[in-house]
Parts: sequence; C-alpha cells; structure tokens
Amino acid sequence: MRSRLIDLHNIQIDDPFFGRYTHLVPDVIIPYQWNVLNDMEPDAAPSHAIRNFRIAAGLEEGDFYGFVFQDSDVAKWLEAAAYSLASHSDEDLVEKMDETIRLLASAQMPDGYLDTYFQIRENGQQFTNLREGHELYCAGHLIEAGTAYYKVTGKRELLDLCCRMADHIVDVFHKEPLRRGIPGHEEIELALVKLYEVTGKESYLDMAAEFLDRRGRKPYYFEEEAARPAWKGIFDSSPDGYHYSYSQSDEPVRIMKKAKGHAVRAVYLYCAMADVACYKGDQELLAACERLYENIVGRQMYITGGIGSSGILERFTTDYDLPNNSAYAESCASIGLALFCRRMAQITGEAKYMDTAETALYNTVLSGIAMDGKSFFYVNPLSVWPAACMEGTSMEHVKPVRQKWFGCACCPPNIARTLASLGEYCLFTGEGNLWMNLFVQMETVQNFSGRLLKMRTETRYPFEGRIRIRFSETETGETAPAKTDEINTLRVRIPGYASSFAITRNSRPAEYETDKGYACVKANFISGDVLEITFDMPSKFMSANPAVRADAGRAALVKGPLVYCLEEQDNGRNLEKLVVDTDAPVRETFEKTILGGTLILQAQGWRESYEAFDSSKLYQEARTVREPVTLSFIPYAFWDNRIPGEMEVWVRKR
Amino acid sequence: MRSRLIDLHNIQIDDPFFGRYTHLVPDVIIPYQWNVLNDMEPDAAPSHAIRNFRIAAGLEEGDFYGFVFQDSDVAKWLEAAAYSLASHSDEDLVEKMDETIRLLASAQMPDGYLDTYFQIRENGQQFTNLREGHELYCAGHLIEAGTAYYKVTGKRELLDLCCRMADHIVDVFHKEPLRRGIPGHEEIELALVKLYEVTGKESYLDMAAEFLDRRGRKPYYFEEEAARPAWKGIFDSSPDGYHYSYSQSDEPVRIMKKAKGHAVRAVYLYCAMADVACYKGDQELLAACERLYENIVGRQMYITGGIGSSGILERFTTDYDLPNNSAYAESCASIGLALFCRRMAQITGEAKYMDTAETALYNTVLSGIAMDGKSFFYVNPLSVWPAACMEGTSMEHVKPVRQKWFGCACCPPNIARTLASLGEYCLFTGEGNLWMNLFVQMETVQNFSGRLLKMRTETRYPFEGRIRIRFSETETGETAPAKTDEINTLRVRIPGYASSFAITRNSRPAEYETDKGYACVKANFISGDVLEITFDMPSKFMSANPAVRADAGRAALVKGPLVYCLEEQDNGRNLEKLVVDTDAPVRETFEKTILGGTLILQAQGWRESYEAFDSSKLYQEARTVREPVTLSFIPYAFWDNRIPGEMEVWVRKR
Repeated sequence: MRSRLIDLHNIQIDDPFFGRYTHLVPDVIIPYQWNVLNDMEPDAAPSHAIRNFRIAAGLEEGDFYGFVFQDSDVAKWLEAAAYSLASHSDEDLVEKMDETIRLLASAQMPDGYLDTYFQIRENGQQFTNLREGHELYCAGHLIEAGTAYYKVTGKRELLDLCCRMADHIVDVFHKEPLRRGIPGHEEIELALVKLYEVTGKESYLDMAAEFLDRRGRKPYYFEEEAARPAWKGIFDSSPDGYHYSYSQSDEPVRIMKKAKGHAVRAVYLYCAMADVACYKGDQELLAACERLYENIVGRQMYITGGIGSSGILERFTTDYDLPNNSAYAESCASIGLALFCRRMAQITGEAKYMDTAETALYNTVLSGIAMDGKSFFYVNPLSVWPAACMEGTSMEHVKPVRQKWFGCACCPPNIARTLASLGEYCLFTGEGNLWMNLFVQMETVQNFSGRLLKMRTETRYPFEGRIRIRFSETETGETAPAKTDEINTLRVRIPGYASSFAITRNSRPAEYETDKGYACVKANFISGDVLEITFDMPSKFMSANPAVRADAGRAALVKGPLVYCLEEQDNGRNLEKLVVDTDAPVRETFEKTILGGTLILQAQGWRESYEAFDSSKLYQEARTVREPVTLSFIPYAFWDNRIPGEMEVWVRKR
Repeated sequence: MRSRLIDLHNIQIDDPFFGRYTHLVPDVIIPYQWNVLNDMEPDAAPSHAIRNFRIAAGLEEGDFYGFVFQDSDVAKWLEAAAYSLASHSDEDLVEKMDETIRLLASAQMPDGYLDTYFQIRENGQQFTNLREGHELYCAGHLIEAGTAYYKVTGKRELLDLCCRMADHIVDVFHKEPLRRGIPGHEEIELALVKLYEVTGKESYLDMAAEFLDRRGRKPYYFEEEAARPAWKGIFDSSPDGYHYSYSQSDEPVRIMKKAKGHAVRAVYLYCAMADVACYKGDQELLAACERLYENIVGRQMYITGGIGSSGILERFTTDYDLPNNSAYAESCASIGLALFCRRMAQITGEAKYMDTAETALYNTVLSGIAMDGKSFFYVNPLSVWPAACMEGTSMEHVKPVRQKWFGCACCPPNIARTLASLGEYCLFTGEGNLWMNLFVQMETVQNFSGRLLKMRTETRYPFEGRIRIRFSETETGETAPAKTDEINTLRVRIPGYASSFAITRNSRPAEYETDKGYACVKANFISGDVLEITFDMPSKFMSANPAVRADAGRAALVKGPLVYCLEEQDNGRNLEKLVVDTDAPVRETFEKTILGGTLILQAQGWRESYEAFDSSKLYQEARTVREPVTLSFIPYAFWDNRIPGEMEVWVRKR
C-alpha cells in the first residue's frame, strides 16, 4: 500500500512562514520565466527555448540554441504552472500553457519523438548518445508536466502527447541497438511511473523498472555506445576515464549501499527505485532505497539537508566529507532528496523520511531563492567569506550572492514547482488515514468518519511548536472534492526534534497512539472541535559526527527544522573569530521587522583576538584574548536577503 | 651592487639534514630522468622528449608527442646535471649531456629558432600564440641550462646555441607582428638576464627589460594576438573570459601591489623584475618587487612557504585565503619564491629574504620529494584526509601520497636543479663580504684577509642552533679557485626566529656588528680558528593572522625554519579530534631511527570525543569529553615517508 498525495485543489496554504515564498510562484516566477522562455526578459540570458520548438515545428527558420537539455526548461515551467493553477486560477496563464502545448504537439514527430536539439541539429542521431544527450531527461520532465496538468485541469492534450512519446520510447528501447540502453541523467524512470499512475498502462511501469535494472550491468552500455559511430555532441563520449559512478551506472541498483555520483541524478534515480519497489512489491529494491537513505542521512548530508559536496561534477564524495565553505549542495539535489523521502514516507508510513524532507525544504530549498523571487542559489554553502568566492579558483562554484536566472536554468523552475506543489508534502491520504506531515497553516475539506468538515490549521510554526486545528461545517455551496476517502485516523507527525508532544481536543488531553513516528488520533471530529498539538522544540546546539572533520570543534544552532546561521550584518566581519558558548542559554526573540518577521536566536560567546598581533605579519607567537559578545543568529533559509557578507552555520565552540 | 652566488665548485655540502636529499640528484634523479627522457623507464609515463628533438633534427621519422612545453624537460635535466657536475664529476654523464647538446644543435633552425613542437607540428606558426605556446618558456629553460653548463664546465656549445636562439628572439620581437609580444608563461626574462651575466651582451638585458615593461599595457597583446589568424593549438585562444591576471598581464609590472595569477609564472616574473631592477638601477621596479614580496609574505604565503592556494589555475587568490586541505602550493612555486628571494637578498643585502627562501626550501620544496627520490608532490597541502582526496571532485588536485614522474614533469626536475644548486643559496660573495645565508654543513676555500683558508662548517641544524666553523690550511695541492675575492667581513645571517644570538671565536665572545639582519664579523681568521655561532630557536606554537579564516583557533608548531606536522601513524586516525595545549612545554627528542634521524616534538593535548554519540547519526546534541594525550610531531618536509595517512599542520588549540 502507498498513501496518496493530497489533491492540490483540496489544500489551501496560507502559511505565515512559507507564504513569503509561495505567493512568488504565481506573482513573480511563472510570469518571469514565461518571459525568459520567450526571450522577452531583457535582463536574463537568452533562453530560446520556445523558439527551439517553433523551429522544430517548422513555424520559424533558425538554428537550435542552448543546452542539449534546453527543452526541459519549458517542461518545468509547464509543471510549475500546472500546480499553481490548483490554488490560483488564471485564465491568461491557461491560455499561454495551451498555446505552448499546441506548439509542442506540432513539433512532435509522427513516431512520438520530441526533442528539439536532435530534431533541429542532429536528426538521425536520436538516442545515439544516451550518456550525454539528455533526451530521456527532457522527456521525463515533459511527462511530469503532462501528468501534473492533467491532474489539475483534467485536460488531456499534453498527457496524450506524452503517451505518444512514452510509447515510442518503450518501443525503441526494446529493440536493437537500444535494448540495453539507459539514460545518463535519470528522470525518465520516475516520470514513466507517474504516467503509469495516471493511465494505468503497465508498459510504462515495466519500462521504468527495466531502466533501473539495466544500470550497472557489464559490459556497460555506455561502453558499447561509445564504440558505435554516433553523435558525440558537445561532450567527449569516450569511455576512458569516465567514472560510471557519476551516473550511478557502476553497479546494479539492487546492491547499492552508498549514494554516489552526481547528486541530482542519484536522488532522481532513488525516487524511481522507490516507486517501482512499491508498485512491483519488490522488497529487495525497497531495501536498497532504505540503505541509500540511511547512507545519505547518516553520512553524506549537510545539516541543512544539502547533498553532493563537490563543486567538480556536483557529486557525492566520500562518507563524512562535508566541507562547509566549498560545499556544492545544489538546490535541485535537495529538492530531489525531498521527493525521494516523500515517496519513502508514502510507501513505508515512517515519519523519519518526512523529517528529512522537512529539513531539505525549510533550509536548502528556501536558501535557493531570494525573498523577492528574483534571484537564486544553485550552490548552498554553509560558510561564506565573499572575498574568497572568486572566479577561476577552486571556489568559483560558490557565489556569495544569489544569481539571476541562469543559462543552465535547472534550479529556479525546480524551486518553483516545489513551492507550487508544497501541499503534496503536507498531507497524504489512504486507507482511512490522513497524514499530517508538515505543520503549515492551511485548509482542507475531508470526510471525517462520515462528516464532511473543513479542517483549518493555524500555526506560527516553525517558530513555535503549537498547531491549532479547527473543524467546521463546510460553507454553503462548497462541494466535497470528487473523491474524498473517509478518514478514520488523523496521523500527526511527531518530529524527531520534539522534546515533548501533546494533543488536546477542546482543551482536554486527547488520546493518541504512536505508530511509525505519527501520533494517531481517532478522527471522529465534529464541527467546532479544536485540536491543539504542542511540542517543545527548544533551540539547541548540535554537534556533527566526529568523523565529519570539517565540523570538529564546532556547533550548529537549530530550532525545530530550522538551521540557524550567523551573518556579517549582525555579527561583524570575520565570523571565524567568534566562539559560541554552548552551555549558556539561548534567547529567542521574534523580530517583526527583520526578514518579513523572524525568530532571532541570540547566544553568548566571545570574539577572539590576539594580544599585540602585528597585522603586517602572517604568522607569529600570540596569546589569545577573548571578549564576551552576543551572537545573533537568523534562519539559514533567509541568509543573503539583506546586505551581502559573510555567513556561517558551524560556529567554533569553546 | 649585487652580491655574487658562490661558484658551485667552491662549496662542498655534506649536510646531515639536506644530505638525505642532495645525494639523490646524482645517484637517483639524474639517471632516472635520463631514462624517462629517452623512454627507457618502463614504469614512467612516455616522455618522448629526446625523440621529439631527433624528429625535429630529421634523424628519425615520427610525430611530436607530449605537452607543447615538452622540450623544457630536457632543458631542466641539462641544468640539474650541470650543477651536479660541480660536486660530482661524472664522465659518463658529461658524455650523455654532450650527445644531447649535439642533438639540440642539429635540431636548431638556421635562424636560431628551436622548439620541437612548432618545428614538427606547426611549422610556420612560430610565435603566433604566445599566450599558450610556451616557446619562450622552453627557450628560457634551455638558456638556464646553457649558462649553468658553461659556468660549471666552461664548455660553450650549448651556450652558443642559446645565444643564437636568443639573438633570433631579440630580432623577431623587435619587428612586427611581435613588437609588443610577451610570453604567456614568464621564464625567458630571467633567462635572458642570466645570458647577459655570462656574455655581457646588453641586448639580452634590454630584451628582458622590454618583456617586463610590455606586460599589462592596453590594448592587451593577447587580445591583438587572438584577433589574428594563427595557431590556436590545444588551448582556446579566445580573449573572452581570459583573466589577464592569470599571466600577470593585467597591469604594468611597475604598479603591481599584489601577487596575482598562476603562482609559478608570477614568481618567475618577479625574479626577472629584481634582476632588471638591479642591472638597470631601476628603483621603481625594485620598489614593485619589495611590495610584491611583502604582499606574498604578509598575506598570501602558507607557513610552509607554499604559495598559490587555488587548485583551479594553480593561482594566487585573495589576501589571507589560505585553505589547508585544498591548498595547491605547488613545489615549483616555492622554488620560484626561493629564487626570487635569493635575488632580493643579493640585491638588497637584507637577511629577511633569506628567511623566506629558507622557509620555502626546508618545508615545501623538500615536501615535494620522497626520501628515496622516486616520487614527488606537485601539490603540498597542509592538511590531508586521504579518503577525501578523490578524483573527479573539488579535491582531485590533492594527492595523499607522492606520485611517480608525471606526464607534466615540471616539479621533479625543478626540485633536482634546486638541490643540485643548493650551494648558491648558502653563500654569496662581493665587495669583501662572505654572506652565510643557510646553516648547512659544508666546506669552502676563501681568501680571508689575504690568507687562503679552508672554512668548514659543522652543524646539526635545523635540529640545533649551533654552527661551528673551523678554519684550516688548505691541503697540499689544493689550488685556490680561479677568482676568490678577498673576504674582509663574514656576514652570518641572524634568523628571524632566533631568540638569542652569540658568536664566539676560540671560545671567547667575538665582536660583531649587526647590519641588515646579518652579524658582521671581521674576517681576519687564521688557521686553527674556531668560530661558534649559537642561537636559541625553541620550538613554539605559531598563530596565523586573524584574517586567515582557515587557521582560526589553530596553532602550528615550528622549530627554527622547520614547520612540524601531525601524522596519522604517530597520532591515530582523525587528527581533527586532537586539540593541542599551547601552554604546556614541548619535549624535543632526537630519534635516530625515524626518518633517517629526526628531531621529534611532543606536545600535550587532548583527544576529543562526544559522550554517548550515536555513530549512526550525523548530527545530535552532545557533550564533549576530552582525554589527555601526547601529540607527536614530525617535520612537515618529511611527511608521507612512512605509512600513508592523515596529516595536519594547523592543529586545533584549546
């Protein structure tokens, strides 16, 4: 059994914390990206993505422009826009989307193939360089868009286009020379499962399963491929020196124990492994997913939910190798991690996976976007000294300030689709249960033990561990969503960081049982009922596993799911001079005017200096002196939204 | 005035410390490299360097193989071999060298040009891509070899070849299109000065001076060059995105304030700037050299004398950016720094420059070579955790163990020529002075105030600050070197780290005056005199300038010129768990059996752990507990000569 994601029509989020970001999707990001895709945004790098489709469709003369995976930008925009429509109806947007979908249909080849790079530039070379060609990656993103648009609007045009494309893929990937073919960048696998979920067509699920099991088998497909005359493209397709682990194709997925290679590819693969394990009832595959999850969370994840620490190849490295200042920790990788964890939570019912998803969402994913929605981090370091983030050095991947929409625009639309589909993380349903995973302020209408009720949560979480849930009659004229399961049990996630947990019903202690990290309450609610969930989540100093050399002698301050950090603006230059007293109490203050209203944490500590240090020298004998100071921390998610400067998560401790 | 380097025939080094390396040059390195250059070494990467000359000379059919700067490997071998002959006569070696020189002569073009890459592969494209072509770099190294061989043996063949080559360069670089041309990799400038020193020909000095002053002038020469149809070679010659600072061509040399760009290129440039400043009496240029020295030593140098911290582009970054584990700190860059400092000491007479040269030589340069002379570090990190030094990651440039001779073989022969010419660092002469810069055990014969005496130093330095100097009659039949200045003053360097300094003559305090960091003793020595120089150089813990964020809260243990480090072999796994007590006394023990006889330093400290840390977790609240331990340090120069493992210079302090 696998619980279902909530229908996005049936959750209205108006969360004070997430609200500063979620409104950006319809108001800023989707209109902006539409302009970028159509080359109408003077400030942005040229995209050419829509023109590529027009050229492929024969509607315009010209050459392809952009990355080989340029088409995926259009797909991600469609997907984000589709989710957004569930909560923000927008006729104008629907028109743009339908116009775009018609354009895509007119560019699609009769056999179902669709990829403008190959149609324009390399016709006849389709699928000859799976390692670097990204056709299956683009196809996957389009399928995600097609299923999202269908689920939100019921419209079939894009879905049908995707089915034609998927049918073509299933066809050619069962014939020579592609009978053993696999994508270099995973994505098609999880997309095919989504298409299976919507259409029920087993061949999609089977193809996804086959793509998984073809990986890592010797002789390696990419070796065979490189030996054939084929399009080599912009990448050297030589197998010499290619690290197969980079694309998770060094070993069969079932025996994997350690997350390896390009982090985004890895977690997209693990998503599909979880999906297939579930729908095929494949325990061996599910066990591999669990091992990979444990490896990431136990050995390879930053405290912020960032993964993939190397700036070169954006990859996982060795266990416990988590440098703070040179961290890659791509926004997209944390999104992928959240997607993987969500699937694992749906499949196993275990709350721990949503703890991890929450960490990724509340820290690295939000760090990825500015509060005005106009600039983005691809790379999410945990320590920044701006002067050292220089181009043409080992730190060139780290940017001390967010960047405008990039040429390689993977992260911004990925963050957009995540924010637009936040509801899918909040609530799951299935077999009489309603899982409440995230504590965001929202409304939903559910059939509670036969009574159709509106359920409204109110909370200042994550700044406070208190969530009030009010049940009330649905308003006149409000219709029940088409399919609402009868909910008999409300399952409220007990966060791993909660040091206490209590539920009251109408101010009296409510009975609950604990199962797999969820507090299970009998859902016999009636209108007027008020449920209150409270848990303590005092701010606390965390230590890293001693094997993490980068964090030795350092502490990170957290509160609930939020990781906090020091910024130069509040604490002066050279944050490395500061030492925190982890034994002194931390003061929590809600500051209405800072960063849209933020709980600030203040700790005691010292600023170190040296007695009589001759600053013209680099090295000398010196006696350390310490002056007491108050250190002021803000949520990591919010860093670099004021004056640019230094930032630090792991602070030296005494 | 500029003091002169000692004639290498007139210094016999038999130093207990350096001896473990200097004997490797004739015994191991020169024979091994000869085999490599001739492709007779089965273990090494193919070199093809000699064959390239045979092909260019028409003696053999075939194609060029190797880097565009492959010729320089032959030049560096000739230079190292030449120095080596001064102290180790070797008829067989002379024969190989002369045979090689004849080969080079037969490959040289009638106009004097010599570069096998361009002669074989790109004839007609000579000097069309100065930015990346490396022809002037190769020419420079050959000139260094030619002057060295002439000075040691008096043989003119290679020198004459170099003069023909240099005359050709002077000629074509005064005509269009090369009238403004400059090399992308500096080296020719300092070489032309050496050729001027030997031949007295002003045009070489003038050309060197012009090459210097052409740099950094707008419009940039490399822009002009890229606009012309020309050989683009293996490098993209597009000026877009080219960082002119990479090749020190972003600003005129006279206004430079900060060391920038590729570190080896930078220090080779500064060598030539010092040379030209001296011979042209150019105070403005000398002031620039002093500023650049101060910038390096005051802001951009590792405590080990390593420079150039970025793994990408092997370059200087921003002031105080000195990461320990990702350090580049190329061996060749420290050699170049020592060469620059030696020139500055010769020109200014200031001891501080030799302090810096000594730091580079005793730490990073020696770290570059294994004690068996068979493997080498290009990159000299100050903190190593071997598991994190993975290919295909941001740490891929860092190797946890030394490598065999590389395809790009710059460092091994550079270390060889440095060891073979160590005497040139030890003693300078000029205007009645004998400068004693390094405290190595050696013999020289000098005319002291009219008496020809043998001067022999005896010392266990750098493990002890005591040098005994015995003066004695020259042996029967020992002839005085051709030109020995009369020495009236012995100038003994007072090291910056000496906490006391005394000289006795025949056990009685000797009078001396201090000038520019040297103790000046009247050189009226007679046979039987014994001078004893003693200084205290207690081991001590150094702190880095607080602006060096990487070293915050850390200490480095040094003794005299030696930087010490922890190795895993002596201190167990995970050196980041160790904390040193900088207030407790350090115990010094000479261990005869370790690393060929080494002073070990033992400090008190603690091993940190966490109470009840669940090691399956990455992050948790935890109380630190400390267990007292003794930390055992070895000289940084000697690291990785036993069991490979972790290493650390900057140790956490309490």
